[in-house]
Amino acid sequence: MRTEGKHIIMDASGCKPELLNDLEYLKGLLKEAAERASATILNVAFHHFTPQGVSGVVVISESHLSIHTWPENGYAALDFYTCGDIDPAAACEHVAEALGATHIQTTMVARGEELDGKYLHRVEKTEEKNNEKELSLFP
Amino acid sequence: MRTEGKHIIMDASGCKPELLNDLEYLKGLLKEAAERASATILNVAFHHFTPQGVSGVVVISESHLSIHTWPENGYAALDFYTCGDIDPAAACEHVAEALGATHIQTTMVARGEELDGKYLHRVEKTEEKNNEKELSLFP
Repeated sequence: MRTEGKHIIMDASGCKPELLNDLEYLKGLLKEAAERASATILNVAFHHFTPQGVSGVVVISESHLSIHTWPENGYAALDFYTCGDIDPAAACEHVAEALGATHIQTTMVARGEELDGKYLHRVEKTEEKNNEKELSLFP
Repeated sequence: MRTEGKHIIMDASGCKPELLNDLEYLKGLLKEAAERASATILNVAFHHFTPQGVSGVVVISESHLSIHTWPENGYAALDFYTCGDIDPAAACEHVAEALGATHIQTTMVARGEELDGKYLHRVEKTEEKNNEKELSLFP
């Protein structure tokens, strides 16, 4: 198994509160995102908080996807970490679209790059995208 | 629930291969790390690969800890993401010590900082530490 991976950190704002509080919806959405990225799902662990909010993780053979939500703030913190040839970027934006996000910030981190026997990560780039019109999201 | 969180990305090298391949050991270690950080454990999902390697996530009320291992490379990729007043740094280094890591690289990312209604993250700092003597680890 190759050690190199792509890890996208995404903070999504302006999301629909009712979706951020719906555990079954979020579980389905993250599983769908994993499948769209052709990842193999191994394990799923989700939790609903009182009074609101959801935390969940999908363990995939190529690493993991995670989500933590604050419905009261329209905010979701997501991580998409994949190994091998999978590119998590498309899956990431699909989730943001589905949640109705009006703004996302993403940072791409390259993980597991070997140098002289040491495995390292490297912050590649940070991007912000707006979806003012709530129409053709994040083209 | 406060949106602000601390997310530590850690790549650990030179770890003991037999520990990186031991699912029960790693599960116990991450649960212990969560407890040391006074986090509340909600859910645990681990998977052992054939022929080797483990992926696992501990969902905590304050976010999640994750580990992915490559025993054949002595490499473990870890994430410690916590919200509220919990500081994941000590838990992070405890895990590296326990795995016998000789080198770690960590990057601290501040998550969920609100600015004009948008929630953002910020890469704070990247550090590398060596443990040449394998004695007083990562002081």
